[in-house]
Amino acid sequence: MFNFTATYTDQYQLAMAQVYFKKGHHDHQAVFEYFFRKIPFEGGYAVFSGLEDLLQIIENFRFNKSEIEYLRNRGFEEDFLAYLETFSFSGNIISAKEGDIVFPTRPVLQVEANIIEAQLIETILLNLLNFQTLIATKASRMRLVAGDATLLDFGLRRSQGPGGYYATRAAITGGFDGTSNVIAARDLNISASGTMAHSFVQSYDDELQAFRDFAEGRPENCVLLVDTYNTLKSGIPNAIKVAKEMEQRGQKLLAIRLDSGDLAYLAKESRKLLNEAGLDYVKIAASNQLDEHVIKSLLEQQAPIDIFGVGTNLVTGNPDAALDGVYKLVYSAGKPRIKISESLSKITLPHKKQVFRIKNKEGKCIGADVVALVEETDVKEMFHPFEPYKSLHIEEYEQEPLLEKVMENGKSLLKSRSLKEITAYSLSRLAELPIEYKRFNNPHIYKVGLSERLKEDRDRLIKENKSKL
Amino acid sequence: MFNFTATYTDQYQLAMAQVYFKKGHHDHQAVFEYFFRKIPFEGGYAVFSGLEDLLQIIENFRFNKSEIEYLRNRGFEEDFLAYLETFSFSGNIISAKEGDIVFPTRPVLQVEANIIEAQLIETILLNLLNFQTLIATKASRMRLVAGDATLLDFGLRRSQGPGGYYATRAAITGGFDGTSNVIAARDLNISASGTMAHSFVQSYDDELQAFRDFAEGRPENCVLLVDTYNTLKSGIPNAIKVAKEMEQRGQKLLAIRLDSGDLAYLAKESRKLLNEAGLDYVKIAASNQLDEHVIKSLLEQQAPIDIFGVGTNLVTGNPDAALDGVYKLVYSAGKPRIKISESLSKITLPHKKQVFRIKNKEGKCIGADVVALVEETDVKEMFHPFEPYKSLHIEEYEQEPLLEKVMENGKSLLKSRSLKEITAYSLSRLAELPIEYKRFNNPHIYKVGLSERLKEDRDRLIKENKSKL
Repeated sequence: MFNFTATYTDQYQLAMAQVYFKKGHHDHQAVFEYFFRKIPFEGGYAVFSGLEDLLQIIENFRFNKSEIEYLRNRGFEEDFLAYLETFSFSGNIISAKEGDIVFPTRPVLQVEANIIEAQLIETILLNLLNFQTLIATKASRMRLVAGDATLLDFGLRRSQGPGGYYATRAAITGGFDGTSNVIAARDLNISASGTMAHSFVQSYDDELQAFRDFAEGRPENCVLLVDTYNTLKSGIPNAIKVAKEMEQRGQKLLAIRLDSGDLAYLAKESRKLLNEAGLDYVKIAASNQLDEHVIKSLLEQQAPIDIFGVGTNLVTGNPDAALDGVYKLVYSAGKPRIKISESLSKITLPHKKQVFRIKNKEGKCIGADVVALVEETDVKEMFHPFEPYKSLHIEEYEQEPLLEKVMENGKSLLKSRSLKEITAYSLSRLAELPIEYKRFNNPHIYKVGLSERLKEDRDRLIKENKSKL
Repeated sequence: MFNFTATYTDQYQLAMAQVYFKKGHHDHQAVFEYFFRKIPFEGGYAVFSGLEDLLQIIENFRFNKSEIEYLRNRGFEEDFLAYLETFSFSGNIISAKEGDIVFPTRPVLQVEANIIEAQLIETILLNLLNFQTLIATKASRMRLVAGDATLLDFGLRRSQGPGGYYATRAAITGGFDGTSNVIAARDLNISASGTMAHSFVQSYDDELQAFRDFAEGRPENCVLLVDTYNTLKSGIPNAIKVAKEMEQRGQKLLAIRLDSGDLAYLAKESRKLLNEAGLDYVKIAASNQLDEHVIKSLLEQQAPIDIFGVGTNLVTGNPDAALDGVYKLVYSAGKPRIKISESLSKITLPHKKQVFRIKNKEGKCIGADVVALVEETDVKEMFHPFEPYKSLHIEEYEQEPLLEKVMENGKSLLKSRSLKEITAYSLSRLAELPIEYKRFNNPHIYKVGLSERLKEDRDRLIKENKSKL
């Protein structure tokens, strides 16, 4: 659906690239690192999403002729343009697995390439990973509280333009079951779901006839929207009549949908009326400004809702509109690099690195990842990044390496997994995380520590940089 | 860049369409209305954006062969699929002008078509108009407080996937001057702007050499980022040296950029140092989590900032992730239609309508739009929608009709305007609005009233619908 060409980038990437090119730095190998600083939604974890899309786009990231011509008119120089004409990304990428749970400050992904190539893919990388990780995390929070209920993405009309397409993919990664978004459902091979709109009922003079026609014209997965006039006095009684007529034809009404009013109360009363009519099998779907907190509250009130349709708050990540992921230089031209800052938490970690998840003998996560130099394999002690007296002995624990090579010389090494497999993986990883990290209010803070070697070299670089001033 | 095919829609649109088709309703003419209920950002107005994109997409909205095949596999019926194969939108659209200021509950746009066509374009219509109107409104708020300063969109890396492309367009509509987003700048014929990243400075062993190389390698519109190590002790002094070297070559440093720390303080101190060095012409750009409130505060503190680069909060509309625009049936099969609700504010206005802006003799908006039946031309009195004793005599005022035909029989009638023209129009309309409606805190509430005929017919339909229960 989208054709991401290489001008899907920020102007400054091209400006810097021309300078690197003209100054002969285009062979300098660089390592950039993708990480974020703050978990969205005041939560205790994030779900990494977007990797497969990203690798596919990077494999095909080229400047076409009209883009080169545009850049020529914008004053870029001929020798540099000739370089761009043959540009393709030929570097390596190591990354967390898509669907894994990830935490602030530790590398989620690293790009190793010549500095121009690494720079030119920055914008698309941040754009896709920040957004999909945000939405997968939001979706995962709803999955956590929804139990066995079906979760459907109804957000396309309120999504941020074509961002809705990727929101759907991320929602599934995080644990949603289906979507109303037809084109995304097709491309991603997931189930497309839908009910009916108020306009359908309004277009008839009476609700019963509207329900009848709908059930006859599209009996598969038929869902009747019951709140156009009055849910309990009109919508449910009419739906019951039509469900009975469907039974006569050997068909079954799938569900009714509530879209306004007090959903807990209406779901309970609707369930009663349906059951009294012998329609125990007819499900109850609910929508209307849902999010994880509303779903949790509805189920705590034992509202008998089987299907939740979630729109705006899912696909936009409301109330957090963006993940604050960044892409920082950690190594170039043979040297580790650091970005210092007066704010300690903004100082970056130099070097190409690996991250290990610390697990106990039962394979359960103890709530800590340790970041180490890429050549380290057996980290004995992890150190708090900035409090010198805080450390944790981790020798006796299992240490699972989290970053794996997913692109080599510009070619993806990713084994194709279906979205369902990614979702299942994500849920299994979340299951390894103790419940304290998953609660909505003041979740326990997952520890991210440094190996001694990494910490020492980072401290050395901080000193060196300060001495320059 | 994007190819919006007709499965860019919600599943239920297709389900309803099949029913309409099979029940012989596909010739029923319908009128749907686009409006929103709540102004975002607790503001006093919204800026309508997205119309030109929408019309272009609707003109070309088709099901391709693979989509038909997909729907076949999803159980849609052959006669309906044959209809979809030849589907194109052949209806009419009347709309507010793109860039106009718009207000809650009044129609912004109306679609008149057979009911299937009107339904199948709903999702893309809401998707594009909700998002662009949200972002144009956000941008307009920054333009209001930024005075003559240059406003640049730096948001692509934090935008919601490819939503960033349309965010850029909407930002310009609302009054932004340029963008870092290269592909959008090219397609929209606006200026692409950019500076340099911290990674560029980090990739060198010293800042001065980095600045030198950058100024030599890309002297056009050169902006140096001065906060990698220490803004006042290192960044500014090095930038001054390089600016002086550029002068020797007959070049001029365009600006320095501040991206951290106290922007007000650093801008003042940087300005002093630059001026003392005879570099009055070098501008100061600032970025880092800006929004309308921060820009307002910086300028109130007389921070000498010439250029603001705004990212996340612009392109995502943070803290309001979505405009709540809806698309409601107001007329079908020869009858006005209404959606009733227990919440008065959710009751829709039936009929095809026109909206008039009430202006005084100086052409200044008095803060009221009146909604009338489409055949009304001279509305004497406007009524509060739900308070029977509140009305306003408007006979002596100028009444400007706001909705104009923009599509006829599926063909756009829109005169192509450059984005600059749309922006200029938008700013001129905003200038007609009294200042009380534009303040950030508790803005004055713009009145939207009804003509007597519309109000009476709406009340009649409410009664009729209630009598059915």
